[in-house]
Amino acid sequence: MDKKVYDLIIIGMGISGISAAIYAKRANLDVLILDKSMPGGLLNTIESIDNFPSYTKVSGPDLAMKLKEQLDALEVECKYEEVRDLVDNKETKEIITNNATYVTKYVLIATGRSQRTLGLPNEQELLGRGISTCALCDANFFKGKDIAVVGGGNSALQEALYLAKIVNKIYLIHRKDKFTANASLIDKINNTENIEIIYKANITELVSKDECLDGVILNNGTKIDVSGLFVYIGFTPKTKFIDGLDITNERGYIVVNEKGETKVSGVYASGDIVDKKVYQLINAASEGVLATLDIIDKLK
Amino acid sequence: MDKKVYDLIIIGMGISGISAAIYAKRANLDVLILDKSMPGGLLNTIESIDNFPSYTKVSGPDLAMKLKEQLDALEVECKYEEVRDLVDNKETKEIITNNATYVTKYVLIATGRSQRTLGLPNEQELLGRGISTCALCDANFFKGKDIAVVGGGNSALQEALYLAKIVNKIYLIHRKDKFTANASLIDKINNTENIEIIYKANITELVSKDECLDGVILNNGTKIDVSGLFVYIGFTPKTKFIDGLDITNERGYIVVNEKGETKVSGVYASGDIVDKKVYQLINAASEGVLATLDIIDKLK
Repeated sequence: MDKKVYDLIIIGMGISGISAAIYAKRANLDVLILDKSMPGGLLNTIESIDNFPSYTKVSGPDLAMKLKEQLDALEVECKYEEVRDLVDNKETKEIITNNATYVTKYVLIATGRSQRTLGLPNEQELLGRGISTCALCDANFFKGKDIAVVGGGNSALQEALYLAKIVNKIYLIHRKDKFTANASLIDKINNTENIEIIYKANITELVSKDECLDGVILNNGTKIDVSGLFVYIGFTPKTKFIDGLDITNERGYIVVNEKGETKVSGVYASGDIVDKKVYQLINAASEGVLATLDIIDKLK
Repeated sequence: MDKKVYDLIIIGMGISGISAAIYAKRANLDVLILDKSMPGGLLNTIESIDNFPSYTKVSGPDLAMKLKEQLDALEVECKYEEVRDLVDNKETKEIITNNATYVTKYVLIATGRSQRTLGLPNEQELLGRGISTCALCDANFFKGKDIAVVGGGNSALQEALYLAKIVNKIYLIHRKDKFTANASLIDKINNTENIEIIYKANITELVSKDECLDGVILNNGTKIDVSGLFVYIGFTPKTKFIDGLDITNERGYIVVNEKGETKVSGVYASGDIVDKKVYQLINAASEGVLATLDIIDKLK
C-alpha cells in the first residue's frame, strides 16, 4: 500500500499553526497538525492578554483552549509528536517524528521560539528547582521569598511586576545600564518598592543547596541569596529539525516572503519562528492564514 | 486656544480600525476613531463566523460587540460622524466630518468596502440565510449541497473553485458569454466536474422557503434548486472622501506598502479598503495593528 500523502502538515500548535489549520481544514485539505507537547505554545506562559482583538481580557491558557476547541470542532487531525527531521524530496516532504514518518505536499513550520537560558553548567538541573521561565506557572512556589529576575526587556519587566505582588523581594538583574522595555513598564518597575534593580551585572554562578537553587553569584563577586530565579533574556527560535534546509538567518529565524514561503519550494513558515519586526499574537495568526491560503491556491 | 492635535485618527470602526485603536490606545497615543454609523463594519452583515481564530462559532454582530467592549474598556475616544474630506497639510492632516474638523499627525483609513448586490427585493433578508458573499467564511455551511455562484471575474471563479471541493454541485451563473477572469482560472473551472456554467443569464428572482434560500430563477424562466448563492459581482471601496489624495488604484482601492503606508506621508490604510489579495477578518485585524505599530515607532 502506498503511504498516505497529506496536502499540508503544520508543525507547531501555537496560534499561528492553529489558525493555519483552521483555514486548511475548512478548505478540505488533508491536513495534520503536530506539536511535541500541547496546544497553545507560548500562550501557555502568558498570564493575561488584553490586546488580542475582541478579548477585553483573556488568559493565555484560556485562549489556547479556545483555539484547541475550534480545531476539535473542525475535526482537525492533531498528533503530539516531536519532529526530528524534515526531508525535502521536491514534490513531497517527509516529516520524521519520534514516532513515525509522514509524507506531505506542503509543510508549514510554526514552531515559534523558546525563552533563552543563561548557559550555566547546573542551569538545566535547577530548572523547576528554583529556576523558572514562567512567572504565571511558578510564582506561587516563591510566596513571601526572595527571588531574582534576569533580563531587561518587556517580558522581564512584565513578569517582575507580576511576581512583585507575590514574593517578598525581587532583585532585577540586567546586564546593561538601562532597560530596553517600554517606558511605561520601566516607570512601574521604578515605583515598585520590593524590586531592587541591579544594572550592569551578569550571573556567573548558580549556587545550590539540597539540589535546589540557593543563590546566584554575579560577575562582581556578590552573592545574592535567593530561592528563585526567573530568566527572561530573549528567545531561541525552534528550528533544530530543519538544519539541513538552509532557510534560517544568522539568528536562527526562518526567512520568508510576504506569503510565508521559504526558498525551499513547498516549505512555508509563519508566526514567531519567522524573521520579522512584529511578534504579536494577531499577526502570527494572520501569517498562518496567509500561508495556508497561498498553499490552497497552489493545490487548486 | 490652539486646536487639539491628535496623534492618530482612525477612520472606520470595522475590525481593522478597532484593532488599530486597541494598540494605539495601549501605547498611550492620543487616538480618535470615527465611523459614520456603528462599530463592526461588514461584521454586522455576517450571520455566522467560524474561521476567526479562537471562535468555534460567533455571529458577526457578536464579534463586533466584543470589539466595541474592548474599545470601551480601554476608554478609546469614539465618534459617530461621517468623514467628508481629508486635507493633507504635510505635518498634520485635517479630517473634516459632517460635524467638525479634527487635526491629527497620522491618519489610518480603514473604511472597508461594500459588496455590490443583485438588487433583488428579498436579497437583504436572505443574506446569511443562503446568500453569502464569502466562500472562505461560509462554504462549510453548504457541505454536500447544491449551490450557485454568480459572477465572471477572478473572485467569482476563485471562490467557485474553492467551493467545488466542499459542495456537491455548483451552477456558475454569468451575465456575459465569457468570463473576465484569468485564463488559468477559466481552464480550471472548465476542468472541474461539479461546476456547470450558465452563460448569458441573470438571476431575476430569489426563491425562499422557511425564510431560507431555496432556489433562483433566471431571466429565461429556468428555476435552479440551490440552497446557497454566492454573489461575486464586485465590491465598492469606501474612499469617496480621499479623492483629492491620489492614493487609490483604478478600481478605487488604496495602494499601500507592507507597513500600510500610502504614498502620502502620514496617511496609512488597512483592511478591506486596501489593494491586496486576501480579504479576511484576521488579516484585516493584523494589518491595522502593523500600521499602528509603525505609527507608534514614528511618534517615538
